Amino acid sequence: MKITNETIKVKSTGMRPTFHTLTEKVKEIVEVSQVKNGMCLIYSRHTTCSVMIDEDSFDKAYTGMTFLQQDLTDVFEKIIPTCRKEGQYMHPGPELTVFAAEHGEDKPGTLNTDAHLRSSIVGRSETIPIIEGNLELGEFGHIYFVDFDHTRARERKVYVQIIGE
Amino acid sequence: MKITNETIKVKSTGMRPTFHTLTEKVKEIVEVSQVKNGMCLIYSRHTTCSVMIDEDSFDKAYTGMTFLQQDLTDVFEKIIPTCRKEGQYMHPGPELTVFAAEHGEDKPGTLNTDAHLRSSIVGRSETIPIIEGNLELGEFGHIYFVDFDHTRARERKVYVQIIGE
Amino acid sequence: MKITNETIKVKSTGMRPTFHTLTEKVKEIVEVSQVKNGMCLIYSRHTTCSVMIDEDSFDKAYTGMTFLQQDLTDVFEKIIPTCRKEGQYMHPGPELTVFAAEHGEDKPGTLNTDAHLRSSIVGRSETIPIIEGNLELGEFGHIYFVDFDHTRARERKVYVQIIGE
Repeated sequence: MKITNETIKVKSTGMRPTFHTLTEKVKEIVEVSQVKNGMCLIYSRHTTCSVMIDEDSFDKAYTGMTFLQQDLTDVFEKIIPTCRKEGQYMHPGPELTVFAAEHGEDKPGTLNTDAHLRSSIVGRSETIPIIEGNLELGEFGHIYFVDFDHTRARERKVYVQIIGE
Repeated sequence: MKITNETIKVKSTGMRPTFHTLTEKVKEIVEVSQVKNGMCLIYSRHTTCSVMIDEDSFDKAYTGMTFLQQDLTDVFEKIIPTCRKEGQYMHPGPELTVFAAEHGEDKPGTLNTDAHLRSSIVGRSETIPIIEGNLELGEFGHIYFVDFDHTRARERKVYVQIIGE
Repeated sequence: MKITNETIKVKSTGMRPTFHTLTEKVKEIVEVSQVKNGMCLIYSRHTTCSVMIDEDSFDKAYTGMTFLQQDLTDVFEKIIPTCRKEGQYMHPGPELTVFAAEHGEDKPGTLNTDAHLRSSIVGRSETIPIIEGNLELGEFGHIYFVDFDHTRARERKVYVQIIGE
């Protein structure tokens, strides 16, 4: 059995959800691993971020998102609106605000409730089978890391773990 | 370590989301694999389709869906309405429409924005543990492949990968 | 290759969704397994329950939920309202009601449609990589088992499966 662990670093922009295409980097990691059959886990431990698979939709909105990413953002804006001030949601509460300050996070930085909620619904990871050396994404599938946190730009990590032989 | 890769082919109907029960086929694959302990990944690479686990709710709606499947479809209709024409969502945009035409997809076939959005929220796969030879679905759990694409009938593939011993 | 299977038993309260923190128990299972690199699958086979990862938000609502859990519950209440009576959703239908009665479930116990729908959107499991002996949850990540079924208190099972070496 072979196990490969790699990390991909990405930078989010803040202001709005940030989508990063990881497809080529993950394919490279699969190739270097020399695993012919096995599972490829793409996982983010950030609790305001998700990993998802979708097609690339080419056309870009003024925000820099593809039209499909903008549509997803619009759906979430409708059901889980961007957190603009305290009291809009229960989170962030007074105890969290103190805890965040102790960890170097200012008050505006805690207004990411929407990002926690959106990302917990989308999920933290995707697992893709590798079959005969091929990462099974199909012709149109792309792997996206999404940072739903709009409060500020950040450095983020995505883990890629491959188990197989 | 044993690794088994199998493919299940299904046909969607178009017109509305199509749900396929995969439970028996996946159980057969587990049995043939002779894996006693390990992980069973059920995955679809189609970017308008999902794999999910739920109970069978017996009663059937006029659409052919079980009542629970119809209820899920109704929830999605409310938050991510079926795409009926261009301009309802940003996707499909002009560049995608050209790209789709080059790949043999006509304009009505690109009106599957809702299917991309719904399926990326539900997710592309489920992973189920196999314990002492038993696929842990419980008494009432069923594995469903869902094709959210309503634009036309299609042949679809689901991958079943088992890793264990 | 090592494979570890463990079960965590939890009790839900009914009345509303119940959230259980599994973080410490899963970390113990990882430590006892002595797996240094591999995948940790946390899975629930109950079709009204989910496993999710989020931060702990400290402040508690009157319901006993953290503010973030209450916010998630509020979002779901908006898009998938709590099932209060038959006919609100298509499920439970007449055939299911008969089947449930044969399995010892009374009529009020079948009013868990919202729990089926909410949990199928959140998903049944999370997979977390173990890297150099560390379950990659980050500083703020917690593993939660969620029982969305409000109809009554129940004993529930969560499976923890580790594959690695």
